[in-house]
Amino acid sequence: MKKVSLSETDQYAENAFKRFIVHDSPYFKILNFNFRAGQELPVHSHEIEGQVSILILEGEGEFLGKDGAVLPARPGDVLISDISEPHGVRAQSDLRVLVTIAPPI
Amino acid sequence: MKKVSLSETDQYAENAFKRFIVHDSPYFKILNFNFRAGQELPVHSHEIEGQVSILILEGEGEFLGKDGAVLPARPGDVLISDISEPHGVRAQSDLRVLVTIAPPI
Repeated sequence: MKKVSLSETDQYAENAFKRFIVHDSPYFKILNFNFRAGQELPVHSHEIEGQVSILILEGEGEFLGKDGAVLPARPGDVLISDISEPHGVRAQSDLRVLVTIAPPI
Repeated sequence: MKKVSLSETDQYAENAFKRFIVHDSPYFKILNFNFRAGQELPVHSHEIEGQVSILILEGEGEFLGKDGAVLPARPGDVLISDISEPHGVRAQSDLRVLVTIAPPI
Protein backbone atom coordinates (compact mmCIF):
# COMPACT_ATOMS: atom_id res chain seq x y z
CA MET A 1 0.00 0.00 0.00
CA LYS A 2 1.43 3.32 -1.09
CA LYS A 3 0.04 6.84 -0.95
CA VAL A 4 1.00 9.63 -3.33
CA SER A 5 -0.22 13.23 -2.87
CA LEU A 6 -0.68 15.15 -6.09
CA SER A 7 -0.33 18.35 -4.03
CA GLU A 8 3.40 17.54 -4.18
CA THR A 9 3.50 17.62 -7.98
CA ASP A 10 1.64 20.92 -8.49
CA GLN A 11 4.47 22.22 -10.66
CA TYR A 12 4.59 23.78 -14.11
CA ALA A 13 7.22 24.72 -16.65
CA GLU A 14 7.02 27.53 -19.18
CA ASN A 15 8.58 25.71 -22.12
CA ALA A 16 6.59 22.45 -22.02
CA PHE A 17 4.19 20.53 -19.81
CA LYS A 18 5.48 18.82 -16.67
CA ARG A 19 5.08 15.07 -16.32
CA PHE A 20 5.31 13.04 -13.10
CA ILE A 21 5.17 9.29 -12.72
CA VAL A 22 2.75 8.58 -9.88
CA HIS A 23 2.96 4.80 -10.17
CA ASP A 24 4.34 2.18 -12.50
CA SER A 25 3.68 -1.53 -12.13
CA PRO A 26 2.98 -4.53 -14.35
CA TYR A 27 -0.74 -3.67 -14.06
CA PHE A 28 -0.97 0.04 -14.86
CA LYS A 29 1.00 3.22 -15.15
CA ILE A 30 -0.32 6.42 -13.56
CA LEU A 31 1.01 9.81 -14.64
CA ASN A 32 0.28 13.39 -13.67
CA PHE A 33 0.63 16.04 -16.38
CA ASN A 34 0.51 19.76 -15.58
CA PHE A 35 0.01 22.24 -18.43
CA ARG A 36 0.24 25.98 -18.59
CA ALA A 37 -2.52 27.61 -20.67
CA GLY A 38 -1.74 26.98 -24.32
CA GLN A 39 0.44 23.91 -23.75
CA GLU A 40 -0.72 20.57 -25.10
CA LEU A 41 -0.12 16.88 -25.31
CA PRO A 42 -0.39 16.58 -29.08
CA VAL A 43 -2.66 13.99 -30.64
CA HIS A 44 -0.80 10.70 -30.77
CA SER A 45 -1.40 6.94 -30.80
CA HIS A 46 0.59 3.73 -30.51
CA GLU A 47 -0.13 0.41 -32.15
CA ILE A 48 -0.39 -1.30 -28.78
CA GLU A 49 -3.21 -3.17 -27.08
CA GLY A 50 -4.66 -1.36 -24.10
CA GLN A 51 -6.52 1.74 -23.03
CA VAL A 52 -5.79 5.08 -21.42
CA SER A 53 -7.97 7.19 -19.14
CA ILE A 54 -7.42 10.93 -18.81
CA LEU A 55 -9.06 12.60 -15.81
CA ILE A 56 -9.19 16.39 -15.53
CA LEU A 57 -8.18 17.32 -11.98
CA GLU A 58 -8.11 21.12 -12.23
CA GLY A 59 -8.47 23.75 -14.94
CA GLU A 60 -10.07 23.99 -18.32
CA GLY A 61 -9.05 22.58 -21.65
CA GLU A 62 -9.97 20.30 -24.51
CA PHE A 63 -9.63 16.63 -25.26
CA LEU A 64 -8.29 16.09 -28.78
CA GLY A 65 -9.17 13.21 -31.04
CA LYS A 66 -8.72 12.03 -34.59
CA ASP A 67 -9.53 14.24 -37.57
CA GLY A 68 -9.47 17.38 -35.43
CA ALA A 69 -12.17 16.23 -33.00
CA VAL A 70 -12.36 18.43 -29.88
CA LEU A 71 -14.31 17.84 -26.67
CA PRO A 72 -14.51 20.23 -23.69
CA ALA A 73 -12.39 19.08 -20.74
CA ARG A 74 -13.52 20.28 -17.31
CA PRO A 75 -12.70 19.04 -13.80
CA GLY A 76 -14.22 15.60 -13.29
CA ASP A 77 -14.30 14.81 -17.01
CA VAL A 78 -12.76 11.46 -17.94
CA LEU A 79 -11.70 10.55 -21.45
CA ILE A 80 -11.24 6.87 -22.26
CA SER A 81 -9.34 5.96 -25.42
CA ASP A 82 -7.71 2.93 -26.92
CA ILE A 83 -3.96 3.48 -26.93
CA SER A 84 -4.12 2.82 -30.68
CA GLU A 85 -6.70 5.58 -31.20
CA PRO A 86 -5.51 9.19 -31.63
CA HIS A 87 -5.88 11.20 -28.39
CA GLY A 88 -4.45 14.34 -26.83
CA VAL A 89 -5.15 17.25 -24.46
CA ARG A 90 -4.87 21.03 -24.84
CA ALA A 91 -4.90 23.48 -21.92
CA GLN A 92 -6.95 26.69 -21.99
CA SER A 93 -5.99 27.58 -18.42
CA ASP A 94 -3.44 25.98 -16.11
CA LEU A 95 -4.54 22.37 -16.27
CA ARG A 96 -3.77 19.26 -14.23
CA VAL A 97 -4.64 15.79 -15.47
CA LEU A 98 -4.20 12.24 -14.23
CA VAL A 99 -3.49 9.63 -16.89
CA THR A 100 -3.82 5.89 -16.30
CA ILE A 101 -2.50 3.42 -18.89
CA ALA A 102 -3.35 -0.29 -18.74
CA PRO A 103 -1.45 -2.36 -19.40
CA PRO A 104 1.50 -0.01 -18.87
CA ILE A 105 3.63 1.00 -21.86
CA MET B 1 -12.99 7.51 -27.53
CA LYS B 2 -15.57 8.10 -24.85
CA LYS B 3 -16.06 10.93 -22.38
CA VAL B 4 -17.73 10.57 -18.99
CA SER B 5 -18.45 13.56 -16.75
CA LEU B 6 -18.34 12.82 -13.04
CA SER B 7 -20.55 15.88 -12.52
CA GLU B 8 -23.34 13.56 -13.65
CA THR B 9 -22.73 11.06 -10.85
CA ASP B 10 -22.58 13.55 -7.95
CA GLN B 11 -25.20 11.56 -6.06
CA TYR B 12 -25.37 10.17 -2.55
CA ALA B 13 -27.59 7.82 -0.58
CA GLU B 14 -28.24 7.92 3.13
CA ASN B 15 -28.16 4.17 3.80
CA ALA B 16 -24.94 3.25 1.97
CA PHE B 17 -22.40 4.69 -0.44
CA LYS B 18 -23.32 5.13 -4.10
CA ARG B 19 -21.28 3.34 -6.75
CA PHE B 20 -21.15 4.14 -10.46
CA ILE B 21 -19.34 2.23 -13.18
CA VAL B 22 -17.47 4.82 -15.24
CA HIS B 23 -15.82 2.30 -17.54
CA ASP B 24 -15.32 -1.43 -17.84
CA SER B 25 -13.08 -3.07 -20.41
CA PRO B 26 -10.64 -5.97 -20.63
CA TYR B 27 -7.90 -3.52 -19.54
CA PHE B 28 -9.29 -1.75 -16.49
CA LYS B 29 -12.43 -0.98 -14.57
CA ILE B 30 -13.09 2.57 -13.37
CA LEU B 31 -15.62 3.24 -10.62
CA ASN B 32 -16.87 6.35 -8.84
CA PHE B 33 -17.89 5.96 -5.19
CA ASN B 34 -19.68 8.74 -3.31
CA PHE B 35 -19.87 8.57 0.48
CA ARG B 36 -21.79 10.57 3.01
CA ALA B 37 -19.79 11.47 6.13
CA GLY B 38 -19.45 8.33 8.24
CA GLN B 39 -19.99 5.88 5.38
CA GLU B 40 -17.16 3.56 4.40
CA LEU B 41 -15.91 0.95 2.00
CA PRO B 42 -14.80 -1.56 4.61
CA VAL B 43 -11.33 -3.04 4.49
CA HIS B 44 -11.36 -5.97 2.07
CA SER B 45 -9.07 -7.92 -0.24
CA HIS B 46 -9.35 -10.57 -2.94
CA GLU B 47 -6.83 -13.27 -3.79
CA ILE B 48 -6.47 -11.93 -7.31
CA GLU B 49 -3.48 -10.61 -9.24
CA GLY B 50 -3.66 -6.89 -9.94
CA GLN B 51 -3.73 -3.49 -8.34
CA VAL B 52 -6.25 -0.80 -7.45
CA SER B 53 -5.79 2.96 -7.32
CA ILE B 54 -8.09 5.13 -5.21
CA LEU B 55 -8.04 8.86 -5.99
CA ILE B 56 -9.76 11.35 -3.69
CA LEU B 57 -11.75 13.75 -5.87
CA GLU B 58 -13.55 15.79 -3.20
CA GLY B 59 -13.96 15.74 0.55
CA GLU B 60 -12.03 14.41 3.50
CA GLY B 61 -11.60 10.92 4.81
CA GLU B 62 -9.19 8.13 5.57
CA PHE B 63 -7.61 5.31 3.66
CA LEU B 64 -7.83 2.06 5.60
CA GLY B 65 -5.28 -0.73 5.53
CA LYS B 66 -4.41 -3.96 7.26
CA ASP B 67 -4.17 -4.25 11.04
CA GLY B 68 -6.11 -1.01 11.54
CA ALA B 69 -3.72 1.17 9.53
CA VAL B 70 -5.20 4.62 8.74
CA LEU B 71 -3.86 7.30 6.39
CA PRO B 72 -5.39 10.75 5.82
CA ALA B 73 -7.25 11.02 2.50
CA ARG B 74 -7.51 14.51 0.99
CA PRO B 75 -8.31 15.70 -2.54
CA GLY B 76 -5.49 14.70 -4.88
CA ASP B 77 -4.33 11.84 -2.66
CA VAL B 78 -3.91 8.53 -4.47
CA LEU B 79 -3.70 5.18 -2.71
CA ILE B 80 -2.20 2.26 -4.62
CA SER B 81 -2.81 -1.23 -3.28
CA ASP B 82 -2.51 -4.77 -4.48
CA ILE B 83 -6.00 -6.22 -4.84
CA SER B 84 -4.83 -8.98 -2.51
CA GLU B 85 -3.79 -6.49 0.19
CA PRO B 86 -6.44 -5.20 2.63
CA HIS B 87 -7.69 -1.72 1.65
CA GLY B 88 -10.69 0.50 2.29
CA VAL B 89 -11.92 4.09 2.61
CA ARG B 90 -13.85 5.95 5.31
CA ALA B 91 -15.55 9.33 4.80
CA GLN B 92 -15.27 12.14 7.35
CA SER B 93 -17.22 14.55 5.14
CA ASP B 94 -19.11 13.93 1.92
CA LEU B 95 -16.43 12.21 -0.12
CA ARG B 96 -16.03 11.35 -3.80
CA VAL B 97 -13.41 8.89 -5.01
CA LEU B 98 -12.36 7.40 -8.32
CA VAL B 99 -11.23 3.78 -8.23
CA THR B 100 -9.30 2.10 -11.05
CA ILE B 101 -8.78 -1.67 -11.04
CA ALA B 102 -6.33 -3.37 -13.41
CA PRO B 103 -6.87 -5.90 -14.65
CA PRO B 104 -10.63 -5.56 -14.06
CA ILE B 105 -12.34 -7.93 -11.63
